[in-house]
Amino acid sequence: MNNKDFEDYLRQQATVGLPSRTKEAMTYSLMNGGKRIRPLILFSLLKDYGFKEQLGYPCGCAIEMIHTYSLIHDDLPCMDDDDLRRGKPSCHKAYDEATAVLAGDALLTRAFQVVLESQCSSEKKCALVSNLTEYSGIDGMIYGQDLDMKAETLTDAHFEDLQEIEVYKTAKLLTLPMVCAAILADKEQDIPVLKEIGVHLGIQFQVQDDILDVTSSATALGKSTSDTQNNKLTAVSLLGLEESQNLVAKLDQQIQSLLNDLSTSTSSFQKILDFLIHRTC
Amino acid sequence: MNNKDFEDYLRQQATVGLPSRTKEAMTYSLMNGGKRIRPLILFSLLKDYGFKEQLGYPCGCAIEMIHTYSLIHDDLPCMDDDDLRRGKPSCHKAYDEATAVLAGDALLTRAFQVVLESQCSSEKKCALVSNLTEYSGIDGMIYGQDLDMKAETLTDAHFEDLQEIEVYKTAKLLTLPMVCAAILADKEQDIPVLKEIGVHLGIQFQVQDDILDVTSSATALGKSTSDTQNNKLTAVSLLGLEESQNLVAKLDQQIQSLLNDLSTSTSSFQKILDFLIHRTC
Repeated sequence: MNNKDFEDYLRQQATVGLPSRTKEAMTYSLMNGGKRIRPLILFSLLKDYGFKEQLGYPCGCAIEMIHTYSLIHDDLPCMDDDDLRRGKPSCHKAYDEATAVLAGDALLTRAFQVVLESQCSSEKKCALVSNLTEYSGIDGMIYGQDLDMKAETLTDAHFEDLQEIEVYKTAKLLTLPMVCAAILADKEQDIPVLKEIGVHLGIQFQVQDDILDVTSSATALGKSTSDTQNNKLTAVSLLGLEESQNLVAKLDQQIQSLLNDLSTSTSSFQKILDFLIHRTC
Repeated sequence: MNNKDFEDYLRQQATVGLPSRTKEAMTYSLMNGGKRIRPLILFSLLKDYGFKEQLGYPCGCAIEMIHTYSLIHDDLPCMDDDDLRRGKPSCHKAYDEATAVLAGDALLTRAFQVVLESQCSSEKKCALVSNLTEYSGIDGMIYGQDLDMKAETLTDAHFEDLQEIEVYKTAKLLTLPMVCAAILADKEQDIPVLKEIGVHLGIQFQVQDDILDVTSSATALGKSTSDTQNNKLTAVSLLGLEESQNLVAKLDQQIQSLLNDLSTSTSSFQKILDFLIHRTC
């Protein structure tokens, strides 16, 4: 799935301007072999809407920068305390904690700037950056992080608690590229259905992550299996392995049904969904 | 200088939406008795340009949110490790480190959203948010933080090193409200002069801070005098107290001279400059 053009674009957007240790650190984490799932979702939907994927590079880059900043801050000792990310030292291990905090801040700020420097109309830029802030901010992804920390103190957790966390923590940033694709393609009428798909996909994605956490080794995943070590809520601990696998299949059926409600056929997007459901890390 | 209307506006912009511990923490730090210097610079220039200060509330709020996020992250144990901010426990002491990281992230993201939700044209919103990202980001304020950390390892530092740090770390966020005022008032022709004023004001502001750090107690400043404790570069340590005081006066003369090059008289802005040069904390 590697897309050299987009990787070059990402690197360029992260390295432009004054050289600094913080910029090195943000580039280190951004270019650290991510699967680029969120940009791929954006590009595939753009293709289905009849546009070139290059139209989505600025937004895809912004979302990947936001995703990377959240991982850098999440890995910090005061958060999940993860030493490994994608098989390499996490940002605060490769650099230091202070630099990792700044690199996350810098990626978040740069994300919005990349979209504002792009070629589309001011109206579209405002709509795109508004959605970027909404989905990643205090009532979006960060709310999910907040719920996640609160859940560590729950003594009697249910799958519904985990589901609420994932609707924010994971689903928001998977829905965002779909919403951006619809805005870029002038297909705002599809956004309500895309949001529903995003919620299902987010929960499915996280349940699969939890399954892989117990069925794969740290080497295959390229990260520490810290969720198990940290006694975090997981689908497998709450539902069991088989029930979790059944849930992934059921969510896939629901997503397939929702795809029919979109204004376009979705052969490219389907390939990404297939890739996600068959992933092994 | 307290402006109850603007304080209410700030609180409302921070608390709207889903309740969470992170939102409490971001509100705690935002509403923690800041002097609102940057919003006051924006409002005073708007008044001089013939506009009501309310026109500047969204941008003033955004800049104050960015300023507050930078203080929260700066106070973290891995950065300056400051337990006090404005006479109260800093965010990670009042809450915890993980919540403080998230509260900073949330304030930064919310800053841009507040401007995008405001009433002006899409073109203006794009110009404003572009400047917010540029002045606060990796080649702006964050570059200053990066230089500041690097300077701690310098063995033979000169005042020029400190000056370069402050041009980014302090001056950028003091220049930003001036640039935003010019954009809001359609006076972009003043931006080059305002940028020059901002550089002088930023250095002056920091030299004064360094003077106050040695002439005031922690109680009067409402923060730990950690710069002295952390062996950070300061104007007083590099130039001595008297030379530092002379520099403040010289920079004031330069600012006064630059004010004549603006397209407006500056009686309101002058009041803020007078307030800053006579401040005791």
